[in-house]
Amino acid sequence: MSHTPEKPRIGIIGTGAIGGFYGLMLARAGYDVHFLLRSEFNAVSQRGLNVDSHVHGPLRLDAVQAYASAADMPPCDWLLVGAKTTGNDSIGPAIVAAAAPGAKVLNLQNGLGVEEALRAVLPDSLHLLGGLCFICVHRTGPGQITHQAFGAVNIGYHSGPATDTAASQSLVEQGAALFHAAGIDSVAMDNLDKARWQKLVWNVPYNGLSVLLNASTTPLMADPHSRELIQALMAEVVQGAEACGHVLPEGYAQQLFTLTEKMPDYRPSMYHDFIEKRPLELDAIYVRPLAAALAAGQDMPRVRALFQSLAFLDTANRRAFG
Amino acid sequence: MSHTPEKPRIGIIGTGAIGGFYGLMLARAGYDVHFLLRSEFNAVSQRGLNVDSHVHGPLRLDAVQAYASAADMPPCDWLLVGAKTTGNDSIGPAIVAAAAPGAKVLNLQNGLGVEEALRAVLPDSLHLLGGLCFICVHRTGPGQITHQAFGAVNIGYHSGPATDTAASQSLVEQGAALFHAAGIDSVAMDNLDKARWQKLVWNVPYNGLSVLLNASTTPLMADPHSRELIQALMAEVVQGAEACGHVLPEGYAQQLFTLTEKMPDYRPSMYHDFIEKRPLELDAIYVRPLAAALAAGQDMPRVRALFQSLAFLDTANRRAFG
Repeated sequence: MSHTPEKPRIGIIGTGAIGGFYGLMLARAGYDVHFLLRSEFNAVSQRGLNVDSHVHGPLRLDAVQAYASAADMPPCDWLLVGAKTTGNDSIGPAIVAAAAPGAKVLNLQNGLGVEEALRAVLPDSLHLLGGLCFICVHRTGPGQITHQAFGAVNIGYHSGPATDTAASQSLVEQGAALFHAAGIDSVAMDNLDKARWQKLVWNVPYNGLSVLLNASTTPLMADPHSRELIQALMAEVVQGAEACGHVLPEGYAQQLFTLTEKMPDYRPSMYHDFIEKRPLELDAIYVRPLAAALAAGQDMPRVRALFQSLAFLDTANRRAFG
Repeated sequence: MSHTPEKPRIGIIGTGAIGGFYGLMLARAGYDVHFLLRSEFNAVSQRGLNVDSHVHGPLRLDAVQAYASAADMPPCDWLLVGAKTTGNDSIGPAIVAAAAPGAKVLNLQNGLGVEEALRAVLPDSLHLLGGLCFICVHRTGPGQITHQAFGAVNIGYHSGPATDTAASQSLVEQGAALFHAAGIDSVAMDNLDKARWQKLVWNVPYNGLSVLLNASTTPLMADPHSRELIQALMAEVVQGAEACGHVLPEGYAQQLFTLTEKMPDYRPSMYHDFIEKRPLELDAIYVRPLAAALAAGQDMPRVRALFQSLAFLDTANRRAFG
């Protein structure tokens, strides 16, 4: 495939459920997409990527441009980061190796402070944007992804060569246009930090409780005690956000709660990480929000108790594996 | 065995780990002890009671005076209640059936408000005392008990015909004398409610976290995150007690924490209840303390979150069984 300025070349750094789904959608829309993989390199090279989408139907990408090393990738204009935050040490060098001059790095990771962590290992010449994925998607096997619901990617500019609002806004719009062309909703966000707090209102209770209580969303939403606990955790995150200067829209937590009730039964990413004995994304989803809120004078006692419980389980889980 | 006024006759209502251990110790001391059992009646009638005590060595009671029905028991002067609080509906009638006139009922259950719950189903003519067991003991099979450490039973008068302090104090001393004769420490407590709060400082964190984190005391005390959580939960219980008018001794929580570090590895009773898919004692250990503290203007947010998590797990656990 040729690289034309009209159709930017896209690199996927970390082809899990998120990277695989969006990469496949963009490739199907005619973009030149290159996928960086680790353990699934052989499987995906040989058998392609499959998405069982309950929204779009079964989707398949046969000839996947797959790479085991970022050094082998062609220079990409956009780099979508789908790798776990727990692997951030190796993500930076991979991005640098695959980046065209002045490339745009779109970070699709969960949690707070994930752009700051990535920025620290990126050269100043690269743009860094944050993308918040509102999607129910999970990996079921090598190159096998199930997409249960939703799909939007909301984008905000974080840092880089764009020094004025017009320049950064233009890049955000270019990013949104990629997704629109692939049939995916995407809106611009002017406050990335606030948007990340908003997503935490969902991630903090559901990711953590799915591990702690060994439960998917449907049973969590069916029991009166877990419902109360979810609402109390959400309320603490809303308070934490407010302490950090982000007043969330009135009724925002209740809206997410109601949305989750109507969602298909879903196991958040942390549940899958735990079952597969991978490290949990505790820094991004718990440690940094707790520290930010506390620095602003607001403790989140239930969130902290949840984090402490998860940290214990994470250690025990991976010790059992070793 | 004959019933002499010098040696009161003792009935054990619920012969689990607690009832079995203390009943055996009292029988070995020469008391006439009668044991009420349910599922283990046949096993204990035929094979006796065995306590593998790491304190006293192996202990055995061959000819156990065992009963499947309280109606068959002779009238007892002291009734020791070792049954779970979750079975309280049937405990009242059993006590009444086995009680001699003016009998003393010594409640060895865990938690808050357990005397009030029992009092409601007892006639006014019976004395009710509370006994707080400081012991590491658990059942390993029918009639098989392991005693790991400690053993004291501290006693306070709750309610009944003793209308002045001298009368109630005399009964508390009679109770303590039973245990002393059996080689067991026992001191009088003048404030039963305060003593129950003090025991909650241990029970709230360790019982709950043993279930939530599927862990015994040694791993819970070895991980920095669970240690912090235990201390935070203890601090909330101390605050709850204080709101209810019970200022606990300075450094009391830290003392229990340090004691637990030095204890042999221990799985609290709630852990065993969960593994055996029995209902958890959530009312006595969580619901009533939370309600009492809240009524006094003090919430215990981490304790509440722990309770809500346990309530979810308890329901799921017993549903899986049915």
